Amino acid sequence: MKQPEPAGSDQALPRTPDITPLLATIRQLHPLSPEAETFLKEHVTAAMVRKRKMLLKEGTVCEHVYFVVKGAVRGFVREGHRDITTWITIEDQFVSSIFGLHQRSPAIENIQALENCELLAMTLDNLEILYQQFPESNILARKLFQIYYADAERRAFIARLTKAENKYRHLLLHHQHLSNRIPLKYIASYLGMTLETLSRVRKKFSSKS
Amino acid sequence: MKQPEPAGSDQALPRTPDITPLLATIRQLHPLSPEAETFLKEHVTAAMVRKRKMLLKEGTVCEHVYFVVKGAVRGFVREGHRDITTWITIEDQFVSSIFGLHQRSPAIENIQALENCELLAMTLDNLEILYQQFPESNILARKLFQIYYADAERRAFIARLTKAENKYRHLLLHHQHLSNRIPLKYIASYLGMTLETLSRVRKKFSSKS
Repeated sequence: MKQPEPAGSDQALPRTPDITPLLATIRQLHPLSPEAETFLKEHVTAAMVRKRKMLLKEGTVCEHVYFVVKGAVRGFVREGHRDITTWITIEDQFVSSIFGLHQRSPAIENIQALENCELLAMTLDNLEILYQQFPESNILARKLFQIYYADAERRAFIARLTKAENKYRHLLLHHQHLSNRIPLKYIASYLGMTLETLSRVRKKFSSKS
Repeated sequence: MKQPEPAGSDQALPRTPDITPLLATIRQLHPLSPEAETFLKEHVTAAMVRKRKMLLKEGTVCEHVYFVVKGAVRGFVREGHRDITTWITIEDQFVSSIFGLHQRSPAIENIQALENCELLAMTLDNLEILYQQFPESNILARKLFQIYYADAERRAFIARLTKAENKYRHLLLHHQHLSNRIPLKYIASYLGMTLETLSRVRKKFSSKS
């Protein structure tokens, strides 16, 4: 069976990518058996994705789980003509659509590279084989979901706050590393405020410190 | 070691609660071994929780995972004096704080009974033993997290929409069963709109159908 091509894999790439950063992240959470690590080495592909390129479009099924080796990626949803950033992910984190992971349903979100990215990709078919052949990978996945779910709840919390100052305070608390790297228009969108409001709040916070 | 008491367990209750609805929900997702089911029977307790009683207060660690046999429960966060409903859960669903499940961190949310509830409860200590002694429970947990994470993303999506009509349309699509059961003030809060706006939108939608 031909595997679906990961988005942006249009460039010449080494056949066996270096998955050291992926293994390092995994080992911190829950070590896999040497056999499972070998399975990863044989089934993970590298993808170079250029800035602004789409990894996923809403309404389609995300067929991959990605790991960000280098770069930044955002998720966004649309409301009419507006585009609302819902999350921003950088190095050493996983990216996919939960709707694909759960029942291969079409995504309600879009995924886009914010910088030139080096990603590692695995198809969901291979992920399913990993789960079946290496039971300990389910422990790893459970722990990963606990972390990512907690992050999702924090994002939802920010989205539900009404005061710009409270939203920005939470950003500084949980995502300070993004605020000097990601263009402010995406941060403003993520916080559900205009660029003008974000600038005003940033000025207020920096004059306090 | 004395186990923490589940919230609201102040009434006389059968020592071995009927966990049939819990087992039915689990079996639909991923069957456990008879030994694991016996572990559940021996370590799950029943809790009757009266309407309006708190199951969890923000800033404290949620020590239990609950299963709703009967009733309705909500999660809410506070912003100043405002109380913002973030989710509403009814029969045959699990309730806990993801912040407790992940690293026993204090919750950022509160959990409250919206009706008189019959719950089943298990301590996180026993859940950890279940994970360790019965590896297949990690597969079940992974599948549960996939479902609940997808729900969390849908809730975050609703929270980020700006137009009341779009929010209400999503509620009808994914949570129609709540709209005739749960007091409108909680639905309005969940949708991030005033009660007046919700009434106006409901009237508009009912005149269309």
